[in-house]
Amino acid sequence: MEAHSIGTRRVAQIGILVRDIEAASAAWAKLLGCEVPPWHWTEPYDEAQTVYEGEPTPARAKLAFFHLDNVDIELIEPDEHPSTWRAWLDEHGEGVHHIAFEIEGMAARSEALSGAGWRLIQRGEYKGGRYAYFDGAPSVRAVIELLENDRR
Amino acid sequence: MEAHSIGTRRVAQIGILVRDIEAASAAWAKLLGCEVPPWHWTEPYDEAQTVYEGEPTPARAKLAFFHLDNVDIELIEPDEHPSTWRAWLDEHGEGVHHIAFEIEGMAARSEALSGAGWRLIQRGEYKGGRYAYFDGAPSVRAVIELLENDRR
Repeated sequence: MEAHSIGTRRVAQIGILVRDIEAASAAWAKLLGCEVPPWHWTEPYDEAQTVYEGEPTPARAKLAFFHLDNVDIELIEPDEHPSTWRAWLDEHGEGVHHIAFEIEGMAARSEALSGAGWRLIQRGEYKGGRYAYFDGAPSVRAVIELLENDRR
Repeated sequence: MEAHSIGTRRVAQIGILVRDIEAASAAWAKLLGCEVPPWHWTEPYDEAQTVYEGEPTPARAKLAFFHLDNVDIELIEPDEHPSTWRAWLDEHGEGVHHIAFEIEGMAARSEALSGAGWRLIQRGEYKGGRYAYFDGAPSVRAVIELLENDRR
């Protein structure tokens, strides 16, 4: 076991950046033969406490989730404020942005990844948990998201 | 149910294009805390019968698989012959390339997708099955791979 392994082998979400969440959701629903899910805004800054490249940002995004049998597909339409979502969309265009894993012990896992040279790109809070995007481009060739949900 | 739904809600694979499959595999193994899997070449043209944008191609790729608890992560390092892998890597760089679904009835599913306006990008055979990449960029904002494995 490496010191910075994330302690799980289960993918929680595949995150896809889109410019029009309603159009993308309708297309996924057609492909999967299911209902179009509702979308919702991420929390405002007071609750989300979003930090992008080390700076607080008021950025928010519309999110929609398809709960498939074994994994969730998350559609993300960011607003215009600075965020990794907006920067990625402007640079790469629409497409798969990250692979998310649900972990336990965000502080320790984040520290271990940082210690192994992984750059923290963005982090924030949501109702019942928190997330952190790490730049896996130099290593695993993908953005990795850690999710931690509070025990209820 | 839409006429072109794929008949499954289970993601089979997340495909990632890489330039150095051994380095990427080592990084994933560290992140997941597991052994580095072996890689193998896709079959030569006689067996793979690869067709890219309507033209036969001798393109091959090195593949490595991480069998996670709920989904496979597939690393793909293409050779220099024309393929969607090579074209994508040259245009977008390393990163997540596609989301794969295992379906039944490749011919009918492909025809339904094509009929709904989805462009077939590349298809080919492997031992025990076949695949087809469809351009989901205008609809679901991702490349979608259909996999069909023969009944054993």
